[in-house]
Amino acid sequence: MFGPVITLLTDFGLSDAYVGTVKGVVLATNPQATLVDLTHDVPPQNVLQGAFLLGTAWRYFPAGTIHVAVVDPGVGTERRALLLEAHGHLFLAPDNGLLTFILPPANADAPPFQPYRALLPKGYRAFALTNQNYLRHPVSATFHGRDVFAPVAGHLSLGVSSQEFGEPVDAITRLAVPVPHWQAGKLVGHVLHTDRFGNVVTTVPEAALAGREDVVVEVAGTTVPGLVHTYADANGLAALIGSNGYLEIALTNGSAAQVLGVKVGDEVKVRSG
Amino acid sequence: MFGPVITLLTDFGLSDAYVGTVKGVVLATNPQATLVDLTHDVPPQNVLQGAFLLGTAWRYFPAGTIHVAVVDPGVGTERRALLLEAHGHLFLAPDNGLLTFILPPANADAPPFQPYRALLPKGYRAFALTNQNYLRHPVSATFHGRDVFAPVAGHLSLGVSSQEFGEPVDAITRLAVPVPHWQAGKLVGHVLHTDRFGNVVTTVPEAALAGREDVVVEVAGTTVPGLVHTYADANGLAALIGSNGYLEIALTNGSAAQVLGVKVGDEVKVRSG
Amino acid sequence: MFGPVITLLTDFGLSDAYVGTVKGVVLATNPQATLVDLTHDVPPQNVLQGAFLLGTAWRYFPAGTIHVAVVDPGVGTERRALLLEAHGHLFLAPDNGLLTFILPPANADAPPFQPYRALLPKGYRAFALTNQNYLRHPVSATFHGRDVFAPVAGHLSLGVSSQEFGEPVDAITRLAVPVPHWQAGKLVGHVLHTDRFGNVVTTVPEAALAGREDVVVEVAGTTVPGLVHTYADANGLAALIGSNGYLEIALTNGSAAQVLGVKVGDEVKVRSG
Repeated sequence: MFGPVITLLTDFGLSDAYVGTVKGVVLATNPQATLVDLTHDVPPQNVLQGAFLLGTAWRYFPAGTIHVAVVDPGVGTERRALLLEAHGHLFLAPDNGLLTFILPPANADAPPFQPYRALLPKGYRAFALTNQNYLRHPVSATFHGRDVFAPVAGHLSLGVSSQEFGEPVDAITRLAVPVPHWQAGKLVGHVLHTDRFGNVVTTVPEAALAGREDVVVEVAGTTVPGLVHTYADANGLAALIGSNGYLEIALTNGSAAQVLGVKVGDEVKVRSG
Repeated sequence: MFGPVITLLTDFGLSDAYVGTVKGVVLATNPQATLVDLTHDVPPQNVLQGAFLLGTAWRYFPAGTIHVAVVDPGVGTERRALLLEAHGHLFLAPDNGLLTFILPPANADAPPFQPYRALLPKGYRAFALTNQNYLRHPVSATFHGRDVFAPVAGHLSLGVSSQEFGEPVDAITRLAVPVPHWQAGKLVGHVLHTDRFGNVVTTVPEAALAGREDVVVEVAGTTVPGLVHTYADANGLAALIGSNGYLEIALTNGSAAQVLGVKVGDEVKVRSG
Repeated sequence: MFGPVITLLTDFGLSDAYVGTVKGVVLATNPQATLVDLTHDVPPQNVLQGAFLLGTAWRYFPAGTIHVAVVDPGVGTERRALLLEAHGHLFLAPDNGLLTFILPPANADAPPFQPYRALLPKGYRAFALTNQNYLRHPVSATFHGRDVFAPVAGHLSLGVSSQEFGEPVDAITRLAVPVPHWQAGKLVGHVLHTDRFGNVVTTVPEAALAGREDVVVEVAGTTVPGLVHTYADANGLAALIGSNGYLEIALTNGSAAQVLGVKVGDEVKVRSG
């Protein structure tokens, strides 16, 4: 059975009442649910950013948490709505790549950051949310956060089993996030996210650096020294391992993202310093 | 008796601690209250936008929910503070039109979107919040969210009866939202709201279209075809019935509001396509 | 023992999932905690604004509330993490001045608004958060909100005693907020904050005006009449006592801050009108 904590991540913003409406439907189903916002400021319809942010946050919640993610340009079309069981948590999302970072990293033939269909690895179970009994009727064509994901989250939090919500599926949509690779003595990765502080988060995990600390990062025509340990240690642009375990570029008292002019998807190369 | 869910809608924004302060007062009265934000980004003192957003969200909450709405340019003046019982929910707001969309649509002699006083329809009860025992003292002249509405919401959630809070009132302030009407073969409505995605929401309810789907919307000098079913179906500008049951204009991968240059109150005309 | 309400104030913004992550860690420690946002839109690394906003909000929460404040440019350096017991509430923050407005006003030799070290007044107790048993490991160098403050808040809410978290400290960092003083017949204060509505909040407390209502405020080369009682009473720029008990300058239907062009730290002078 799953617990009462339900997180929400959307691109709905906070200036309309869409998020409040979703919460109303959850509470109308289970008034005991504990609702937590991950973020609602995913840029409209930016599935990659939503997927990344969900991937950074879910693991800090208690086992049994239900995570609802809705960045859904295909709402009302034939795209499926999914329930994914993974790592002792439950994830609800449209089948468009939002769950990419819940799954283990994988290389794909698809172009970088584009969606493709992939088999679920062992240890993961997914279901299509097709059981009409758990949806809010009439189901609108434009607001499945309210009519599909919210009531299903409410029922899950009341203890309804995953398989009650629909048929199992064995393949889901992922985004092709390139796994960093070595090329001519350099580790090649990409910019994944730029945060509120202007920190530039890359796809390069700490483990890929294999303990090397004396590195240099080439990004946007600039060479950034590293690794420092804290933001306060940076003196101008500097590379460090961020709180999510990825290589980041930071700027003392400023926005590295702005100074570098980088955007999500840009290449970064790491070499010995 | 009313339940423990309390929603908040204000124009306080989230960059100050005003909303947090209101929540503190509610929780100091009833630590068991479940607080849910509808939105706090109503443009400062824009009663119409607050009223519209409250009107879209309240119905999705469980019966017995207490809705606190504070967009209050007249705070500290003689304007009354109200408690409205409607549809099995409770609403707290200044008496300035914020509760317009909780009441049934009505035509008025007042100029479009301006406030006027109207008798409460049958089935609705309202009270002025005059009982000093339920307010936070001293009551400031500038922050009734904290000193009037929050403590009253807390006490309501503890089971205090509506009539305890003050005298019944039989007329409240409404905004004159023009009911769409037919003119020369066209259904004339207005723009009510533009949302985070740039969707243009109008006053035209689905029912007014009487099942007609082959329509054209004239707005801001542009002719928009309709109806499509989903945002993904739109190919450029398109009209559809939005999730609140009103005619909307959307733009694929863009902001219809920006492209059309419309603002709240602008006229829209619907005719056969 | 302290209760289950935990407030959060940070400069993390809401567009990343940092705040959600902090909440996840709190709930993983104590699933019964009630989490309330004060604000997360403190300008990045602006300790003074964070301190001011915390100072305006904490007192409205129930006794026993745990307040977590993280605006932390020195994260990962030698700066201490603190637990402060004050006024029957608990405060968690980096030792950088964020707790300034929890303490009684004090004059200091330090330059205006700069940090300095000061002994704790009587009736206040503080502890350094050094007990590794209550932290999340590994403790990152860049995200103590998640790894230090969140787990400590969770354990405090479960009833762990303050002294369990580390050694008592007798001096903490404060910001030197000048206490308003009389000079040549004028009361000299400073701008402390400009809010979402453009109201200009000053350091001048109501008590310093000693009941005088016929005053004039000199600010940014402009003379502003006062005191009015409500925002609606203002006719153009006007001075009033705001909801936090400080002298404010407001502008009818506009932003006083923008029209005056003032910024935090600017001097204001009050004289008889």
